[in-house]
Amino acid sequence: MKEYPTSKKNKIKRGAKRGSYNIEQINDILDATSLCYIAFNFEGQAMVQPISFGRKDNELYIHGSYQNRMTESILEADSVSISVTHLDGLLLARSAFHHSVNYRSAIIFGKARELKSNDEKLLGLKALINHVVPNRWEECRFPTDEELKATRVIAIEIKEASAKIKRTPVSDNKEDYELDYWAGEIPIVTKALHPVSDEKLKAGVEMSKSAMQYYKANKKMI
Amino acid sequence: MKEYPTSKKNKIKRGAKRGSYNIEQINDILDATSLCYIAFNFEGQAMVQPISFGRKDNELYIHGSYQNRMTESILEADSVSISVTHLDGLLLARSAFHHSVNYRSAIIFGKARELKSNDEKLLGLKALINHVVPNRWEECRFPTDEELKATRVIAIEIKEASAKIKRTPVSDNKEDYELDYWAGEIPIVTKALHPVSDEKLKAGVEMSKSAMQYYKANKKMI
Repeated sequence: MKEYPTSKKNKIKRGAKRGSYNIEQINDILDATSLCYIAFNFEGQAMVQPISFGRKDNELYIHGSYQNRMTESILEADSVSISVTHLDGLLLARSAFHHSVNYRSAIIFGKARELKSNDEKLLGLKALINHVVPNRWEECRFPTDEELKATRVIAIEIKEASAKIKRTPVSDNKEDYELDYWAGEIPIVTKALHPVSDEKLKAGVEMSKSAMQYYKANKKMI
Repeated sequence: MKEYPTSKKNKIKRGAKRGSYNIEQINDILDATSLCYIAFNFEGQAMVQPISFGRKDNELYIHGSYQNRMTESILEADSVSISVTHLDGLLLARSAFHHSVNYRSAIIFGKARELKSNDEKLLGLKALINHVVPNRWEECRFPTDEELKATRVIAIEIKEASAKIKRTPVSDNKEDYELDYWAGEIPIVTKALHPVSDEKLKAGVEMSKSAMQYYKANKKMI
């Protein structure tokens, strides 16, 4: 059970019993989506931006254009903070005070570096696309030199990280269980629908294997 | 069609044709979830944290405990940056380069202030709970003075904001349409499941009206 080191930055203070530094648990949270939220400084202000990402081993990969304030900022920073959270349920308690949510949340602190050679960029983009939809990279046209030239690819090595997971029933003060208010959970799920072929799909082209695999793994039939 | 003012902070540079400063569009994005990502400074580093929020008119409401580094930081800041994003689909193009996503994203810049009187705090918490599940506030025990004392409630007045919405089919370079790669979209949906009563629910207590209304509005039967 390997863990990330803790510091003042990633040490969980509130709800520490729900906290974890376990690498496998953190990776599970990261791998359940391809959308993360990345913090950066712009003229002294902390800002946040959503972006698609990939993970491979202990690195995250993002891409963008050059001359972008977010990528400029994180490449200059000693440490970059990234959040990935899944909302799993709304907990409606008898008391307003104990309303809460079930969730899985990971906070990452890492060091960003630009991938500069075409070989490095290709590996980064492959990790990104194959994180979003496993094995998709092998099913599409690889980037040309010109496309690579227009794409900034950034690797973020995870230095510290923490997870917080809450998966509990509603909890109320003892005396409130006698109240006539309903209490319970509204579960929330995120799922994939069946892949929809492009209207301009060339005649005879078969459905993508990777897209169907992704759908089967994420349709969560209920 | 009322709009937020634009400045260097919220002016959209990349993909400006997908951008909007329209208040109604931005509110629609905010109201489709209760989870936001808030940026803050901690010892000079930009950090990001997920948190439940409510919206009423042009204010967002969050709550937490005292002695929390995030709430301390945003109350000191001139401007707070918040992101809310919905991932609506994965666009698998014929070329790696044109892989993309459909999404609805709002970035908010606001000024945080602490609600200090019990009356103000109650209004803030009501706005928060009734944003998560409309009309739930009227169905639960209101906070006691002691509970209010332990809860920090913060209002964030939206000063500037922008939305970016992408809802398009896959797009490839003209010559790539002749390739034998599959292209299309994997739609992604987030939905509510049927409310589950707490195991310790008092006998005879009926299902919550607000929970059932929420479920009906968010079950997105497909």
